[in-house]
Amino acid sequence: MPEQLSDIGLVGLAVMGQNLALNIADHGFRISVYNRTTATMEKFVAENPSTPGGLAGFASLADFVASLKRPRRVIILVKAGAGTDAVIDQLVPLMEQGDIVIDGGNANWNDTIRREKALKAKGLRFIGSGVSGGEEGARFGPALMPGGDFEAYKEIEPVWNAIAAKVDHTTGKPLTGAAPGKPIVGGVPCSTYIGPDGAGHYVKMCHNGIEYGDMQMICESYSLMANLLGMSAGECGKVFAEWNTGVLDSFLIEITADILQQKDPMTGGFLVDYILDTAGQKGTGKWTSVSALDMGVPAATIAESVFARYISAVKDERMAAAKILTGPKANVDGDRKAFIQAIHDALYCSKICSYAQGFQLMREAQKEYHWTLKFGEIAMIWRGGCIIRARFLQKIKEAFDRNATLANLLLDPYFKSEVDRCQANWRQVVAAASLNGVPVPTFSSALSYYDSYRAERLPANLLQGQRDFFGAHTYERTDQPRGRFFHIDWPEPGRPQLEA
Amino acid sequence: MPEQLSDIGLVGLAVMGQNLALNIADHGFRISVYNRTTATMEKFVAENPSTPGGLAGFASLADFVASLKRPRRVIILVKAGAGTDAVIDQLVPLMEQGDIVIDGGNANWNDTIRREKALKAKGLRFIGSGVSGGEEGARFGPALMPGGDFEAYKEIEPVWNAIAAKVDHTTGKPLTGAAPGKPIVGGVPCSTYIGPDGAGHYVKMCHNGIEYGDMQMICESYSLMANLLGMSAGECGKVFAEWNTGVLDSFLIEITADILQQKDPMTGGFLVDYILDTAGQKGTGKWTSVSALDMGVPAATIAESVFARYISAVKDERMAAAKILTGPKANVDGDRKAFIQAIHDALYCSKICSYAQGFQLMREAQKEYHWTLKFGEIAMIWRGGCIIRARFLQKIKEAFDRNATLANLLLDPYFKSEVDRCQANWRQVVAAASLNGVPVPTFSSALSYYDSYRAERLPANLLQGQRDFFGAHTYERTDQPRGRFFHIDWPEPGRPQLEA
Repeated sequence: MPEQLSDIGLVGLAVMGQNLALNIADHGFRISVYNRTTATMEKFVAENPSTPGGLAGFASLADFVASLKRPRRVIILVKAGAGTDAVIDQLVPLMEQGDIVIDGGNANWNDTIRREKALKAKGLRFIGSGVSGGEEGARFGPALMPGGDFEAYKEIEPVWNAIAAKVDHTTGKPLTGAAPGKPIVGGVPCSTYIGPDGAGHYVKMCHNGIEYGDMQMICESYSLMANLLGMSAGECGKVFAEWNTGVLDSFLIEITADILQQKDPMTGGFLVDYILDTAGQKGTGKWTSVSALDMGVPAATIAESVFARYISAVKDERMAAAKILTGPKANVDGDRKAFIQAIHDALYCSKICSYAQGFQLMREAQKEYHWTLKFGEIAMIWRGGCIIRARFLQKIKEAFDRNATLANLLLDPYFKSEVDRCQANWRQVVAAASLNGVPVPTFSSALSYYDSYRAERLPANLLQGQRDFFGAHTYERTDQPRGRFFHIDWPEPGRPQLEA
Repeated sequence: MPEQLSDIGLVGLAVMGQNLALNIADHGFRISVYNRTTATMEKFVAENPSTPGGLAGFASLADFVASLKRPRRVIILVKAGAGTDAVIDQLVPLMEQGDIVIDGGNANWNDTIRREKALKAKGLRFIGSGVSGGEEGARFGPALMPGGDFEAYKEIEPVWNAIAAKVDHTTGKPLTGAAPGKPIVGGVPCSTYIGPDGAGHYVKMCHNGIEYGDMQMICESYSLMANLLGMSAGECGKVFAEWNTGVLDSFLIEITADILQQKDPMTGGFLVDYILDTAGQKGTGKWTSVSALDMGVPAATIAESVFARYISAVKDERMAAAKILTGPKANVDGDRKAFIQAIHDALYCSKICSYAQGFQLMREAQKEYHWTLKFGEIAMIWRGGCIIRARFLQKIKEAFDRNATLANLLLDPYFKSEVDRCQANWRQVVAAASLNGVPVPTFSSALSYYDSYRAERLPANLLQGQRDFFGAHTYERTDQPRGRFFHIDWPEPGRPQLEA
């Protein structure tokens, strides 16, 4: 029996787990830690002898569980998937009625729904919490998206609110501590109860899908500057640094400015010029796209950002194709400064569309899974801590404050006026990229999304005609009430009935 | 005990089942039929008293099975999903070792893999066969894509070859009988053994995914003519009729010409002008896109065609948005005839890219599922009977004849030269659509695909830099062997190390 019971426990001491544990301890909570490989735990505890709350390491899971105050709260931070199930299976026999298991990994929301149900049947409570912000976020303030039983959430709320990133009450800008590791005083925590069972992990997944879109859009901007204006990485970086002072102000734009200006320790050139252009992925962008496909939500721009990673990955095929396939010689006349501004506006408008898709996806998911998501609060907690944190999210929060049931971000007066202001430039950029052979899959997909969404009439009438022609799928009519289905006996192919 | 045993049996007498049964009987095979609702079976048999092979209807499934020659061959044509499993469960106890169940529905290939395995364990054989061509195809000659045990396939091959569509040996053009329902003499059947277990249904699914792409691309062409050139449906139809005499010659272009010129029996105007623009879907395009996402294949253009249906479906949202969101006033100057030709070329190039994606998807699937697909044969059997039948498929067959392991259709000399010839027009169309507010999700996605695929260098280097910055995901270097991973200690955001 340990001398002092801990407030909370954490299983899994990879970097994310270590950092989250230190963050929790920094805020005065005593935390017990356990790791499958004991040496990792011992090294971690030895290297962090003095934290405000205190770290207690255990080599046995039973001792670890016994070291916790009741109801016991155990955070799992292991590789999502089978690893999580394995830890849960080991924990369950050691825990008691009302104890709480919290999965902080990037779990698929369907797994979270399944686990919550299975643990509930055993009298245990389960929270699936999105944790965003990478290693830095885990250490000094992530955005947190907890989902599950509300009463269980209340038991972890003090810890979650304490360790989360904080933003300013009025401006929504992220706050920082006096020094790294020094807790932030005041501010609004970037954590809120999302909803039952898998809601937290679903919303975290949407965050990641949106992040995929943001990253690809930034890449397209950089590619246009490099390929159409002949700018060096460093020059591009300076542009992003400037953009970071305006409406695009965000973590990803900020680090992009730094990355592009970063010198390569090995060659002295710009580092990005030596980084291989094959993007990896870990599944959450794919899940977002699959969920959109499954639920019938047109989140094409997010999907394009996933496909863009895939096509980057077939580098050998591309190198072979580059020797065979032809394209135009890039030729952009006119005012360079104006074109850079046009790229800015294209990125901005595309980003608005991508977020519109992400929020529409969550809107549909809440129907599918019987959640009640508060979109304003979701935008609010994304203002700090997470990878997509941005000034922009304050505007989204304000949009949902104005209208909690907003059908599409594009319809909010602020975003509408921004797209009105910037769309001519957006169109110019997509046109120039198309004419000059620079791929802009997300910019152009977002533009088609915008133009489709504002189209009272799309050519799907012809498509329904085709489906009725070859499959007798029937169609509805514009001059008849919905829900009445028509079919005509189409002529044999090649012999149209030109007169009715 | 019936006087005469039947060659084959069929369960499920909806339109597809009835038509396939008649097609089989037309070719001299005696066929037993069964339907859950007996009246439907009785009506069907009564209405078709004289067929060359003979129709035998049964009210009991046991009598139906007993009426078949051994090994018994039973085709199931019911609604894909639980309905298929229900019929299989009823059939299994009535069948004997070596008997063959053939699922001709639009099954998900994963279900086919599962069913094949389950039946094999019971000593039965299972064929999952794609059947394409809609009601007309089923009646007078579909394209058939059988997958499963090869020996079982050999047992149904005579029937499958007989009922399939036929194309000319030399030109690959579809042949027609002397009259509807009169068997075609000679020709190459549009049926071939695809591969083990789910291969046939997988390839059928890819056919449908490609079909989604084709249909959406035709819709975009029509939309550009209507919205940018102010052409009536009938005028557009005439253009498609003309296109059907050239490289785009295909069933879908042919019926599009007819559909657009079709007069509305209710108003006397053009029918498409009265068809509601909300596209339905039955899942196979979605499955194709999900499979591409799951396997990491960049089939973005096919996915865009699915998302385009989704956005068409939110008609009420679009009508509301149309009142709020703004766009440019369409303004296309210059030679109308030249612009129509440019639309033709955009459709043609986009179609090449979409097929390239579809074939790359099958290439990846054969690795994933341990099949050996013959891509030339697949193109060959798609030349007739199915919805995507086209002169174009003869060119794809020839491409794979030249190089059976062609990595991408775009790299074949014929398709490369066609894209070379047409790409300037394609680019002009995407640019004009973007500037003028007409959505072209598949045209522009295909163009980004082309420009990405031929790019030796994509901006994913920056993306890998971002991932390493916030997630320590590491990167590879262009000046180091693949498989060596690097990471640098990035500066804190906002404080770049401008000098290494």
